[in-house]
Amino acid sequence: MTLPHPLEAILHPRSIAVTGASDNPVTWGNGYVRYLVNFGFRGNIYPVNPKYSEIMGLKTYPSLLAIPGPVDYVISCIPASDVIEMLEACLQKGVRAVQMFTARFTETGRPEAAQLEQEILKRARKLGIRLIGPNCMGVYYPRLGMSFGDELPKESGATGLISQSGGGAADIVRLCGQKGIRFSKAITYGNAIDFNECDYLDYFAQDTETKIILMYIEGVKDGRRFFETLRRITPTKPVIIAKGGRGNAGTRAASSHTASLAGSRKIWEAVINQTGAISVENFDEMADLAALFYFLPPFCGTRVGIVGGGGGAGVLAADQCEEAGLDVIPLPGEIREQLKSRGVAMWDWIGNPTDMSIRENDKFGAGDMLQLMAENQNFDLLIAMMGAPYRRGQPEISPRSHVEQYKLKGNNPKPLLAIIADRSHGIEDYDSPVAKLTAGVRTEVIAAGIPFYPTIGRAARAARKVIDYYRKREQRSSSL
Amino acid sequence: MTLPHPLEAILHPRSIAVTGASDNPVTWGNGYVRYLVNFGFRGNIYPVNPKYSEIMGLKTYPSLLAIPGPVDYVISCIPASDVIEMLEACLQKGVRAVQMFTARFTETGRPEAAQLEQEILKRARKLGIRLIGPNCMGVYYPRLGMSFGDELPKESGATGLISQSGGGAADIVRLCGQKGIRFSKAITYGNAIDFNECDYLDYFAQDTETKIILMYIEGVKDGRRFFETLRRITPTKPVIIAKGGRGNAGTRAASSHTASLAGSRKIWEAVINQTGAISVENFDEMADLAALFYFLPPFCGTRVGIVGGGGGAGVLAADQCEEAGLDVIPLPGEIREQLKSRGVAMWDWIGNPTDMSIRENDKFGAGDMLQLMAENQNFDLLIAMMGAPYRRGQPEISPRSHVEQYKLKGNNPKPLLAIIADRSHGIEDYDSPVAKLTAGVRTEVIAAGIPFYPTIGRAARAARKVIDYYRKREQRSSSL
Repeated sequence: MTLPHPLEAILHPRSIAVTGASDNPVTWGNGYVRYLVNFGFRGNIYPVNPKYSEIMGLKTYPSLLAIPGPVDYVISCIPASDVIEMLEACLQKGVRAVQMFTARFTETGRPEAAQLEQEILKRARKLGIRLIGPNCMGVYYPRLGMSFGDELPKESGATGLISQSGGGAADIVRLCGQKGIRFSKAITYGNAIDFNECDYLDYFAQDTETKIILMYIEGVKDGRRFFETLRRITPTKPVIIAKGGRGNAGTRAASSHTASLAGSRKIWEAVINQTGAISVENFDEMADLAALFYFLPPFCGTRVGIVGGGGGAGVLAADQCEEAGLDVIPLPGEIREQLKSRGVAMWDWIGNPTDMSIRENDKFGAGDMLQLMAENQNFDLLIAMMGAPYRRGQPEISPRSHVEQYKLKGNNPKPLLAIIADRSHGIEDYDSPVAKLTAGVRTEVIAAGIPFYPTIGRAARAARKVIDYYRKREQRSSSL
Repeated sequence: MTLPHPLEAILHPRSIAVTGASDNPVTWGNGYVRYLVNFGFRGNIYPVNPKYSEIMGLKTYPSLLAIPGPVDYVISCIPASDVIEMLEACLQKGVRAVQMFTARFTETGRPEAAQLEQEILKRARKLGIRLIGPNCMGVYYPRLGMSFGDELPKESGATGLISQSGGGAADIVRLCGQKGIRFSKAITYGNAIDFNECDYLDYFAQDTETKIILMYIEGVKDGRRFFETLRRITPTKPVIIAKGGRGNAGTRAASSHTASLAGSRKIWEAVINQTGAISVENFDEMADLAALFYFLPPFCGTRVGIVGGGGGAGVLAADQCEEAGLDVIPLPGEIREQLKSRGVAMWDWIGNPTDMSIRENDKFGAGDMLQLMAENQNFDLLIAMMGAPYRRGQPEISPRSHVEQYKLKGNNPKPLLAIIADRSHGIEDYDSPVAKLTAGVRTEVIAAGIPFYPTIGRAARAARKVIDYYRKREQRSSSL
């Protein structure tokens, strides 16, 4: 039997103290208290700051030692120079771990700051206190009521996130959130002087709440361990990694952000490739892939059926799917026969991609075509181009009816992706019916468990990468 | 002196008849009448259909011949089988050109339809009537009051569009419109049996309203002429081309869309490269490039300064800019000295990209940093990462104040691009302050004449392609 990971206890504190707490809402010392309150943390919340007697209606303590009873977890928002003294008080209060929002260490490039960081680590080790960070935003754990942002979703899901960047983690949660993806926990870890990326990977490997692991990483502390950890995890949980610091300028930036020493791009790519992890260029691509793992069962085939959109959009859809490595097969003869027998006027003309704008007023819609493709053995996955959507001169339509045009009746045995155009409009279009309809369609599509993309190119590239992951996983398991 | 292009007279009709007009708003026979009315066409509008005496308050004629006085331009929404008879009537009314929305010709793959198409062409030639199309949505010319969609902007601009796909053209106008780009004319031309892509190129080359030319093209009728036409135009007007039908599936789709015979991808790429035109993969990339030509003066340098965003975003920004072929240079020593003398606490730590989240409460903002970069000879272009934007616990801010944080004071001698995150949210976030602020920021950025992008990767790739165009143009002009 595997022992529980040390983070398991640390991430389930019965009480949390925020040192450097504040009543000024623009500060993080206020934010962390507010998040715990607003996300419904059920344990004790102890703001600590000698300047206040109360913050957000909570009794505020002049020091850690003034808190009655034990404290499990500390969020540190005090200046770097005060941390060592705080650690001594932590020992007395029985603190298991300190999440250090506190920053200004090695990342500044200043020798005295780097030295202080080392002293803090030494002291914490000596006292048996574990550190998350420093220079990090800590933990988002919505089920427990921990967060590092006001706007993050309060619901939980099966995605775990490990991020060296706090702002990056908030971006990832937001971008994934727009697609309906929810998180078990997101841990940001900055300079990683104690727990590092491998510890967090080990934790998420064990965590039963987590089925998919996302990572944003700037530097790796122990390459050998990282390689082996990844290789062990990827056969059971997909790991999607965005690497920051791939080139010269990025490496410079990573060094002044989290004091990371980035390796060469080539070594990185080889590691990723050999471990079965999945590499992405940026957070958008990360969310694109995560949605496929989150909403769909595994799929390995590349033969795609594409329905909807106009003629030009269909032509470019075919090109972009092919360029991404999908097979846009011609419409199978059996489907043509089915169309003919159902009296579809354009049965000999309709193809794949299916340009629905050419059909005449026979009652044969995009959903019917998807249904035929879903039942046909020649297709492995389906893409529904749900349009901008324009409603030329037509009466208003509800988002649900719009989506139902495309949705498969009954059980769909094939993975289905939707394309819903981005409408990054200005304020003058804010209340336009089309913009509202588009937003409503996104909500309906999420509720139906369908991953969606602003462009067909992004959908196709994401699908192909996920197929490659599943194929590689299958090969590895069959070669065992 | 160059003779005026025949399209110059055709596109300035004093009267337009819509044959196959209808009072049913979901039909195109109604749409074309509605667009002329709603976009303010000042000439005579003649709906033609024996079934109606009035459409949208306009007297409706049973036939073209029943119209009193001459008709310059006809929009044909009648069935394919009735076109030849209509052409005879056109001759009697002095019609210069017919825009054939009418379709169902060669694109259907049916021999009898292809034969009818050829007969129509022969007859039109014999009668001296020019054809736009068939199988096309025709002309969007907002200054004159012609359109092929309700939702297209009513204002004009310096962009010309030539598109073989009508739905594609509407997408392009919409995507460009979201970035503040406006059009002189958009011409869609479907099967191109009479006027073809080279005729339209020749026209836009002459057109003084048009400074930038966009094209969506599925097939080329005369490769030699196309090559020479493009080569002649690109030194004075950039031509951005999306090619549909690049691969096998796309070629099949193009054939059943506009009966186009697509050539090989390699030949296409060689042609584009040798003519100085710019190739793009899809309409989003087309709009990304168009914005740079539309809003900015020419620029040839690749040394970029990046300001704003958090640490992780900055690291990935540096990577993605480098990968796109921009040079993310280290922060020049002179700027570091300027920061020091202005008392900026982190003067020795701040870099390029500039992570504004590390600055302390010294009054030095993103706009100040951009200003220093703009005045420094080491930078060729600037990117402002304007954020999601999040407003953690902060009071509400107006879009204008948000943009003014980044905007350069005084005259900015360097091209500036903005990154404003996409917020493709669902209906539940429709009225969130952040989503509204983001939409407001887009409007302000457009008003300030700044091209903006949802991701740094798209901005950087677009900038690099535009730089390549200007460099090539400079080389060609200096080698003459």
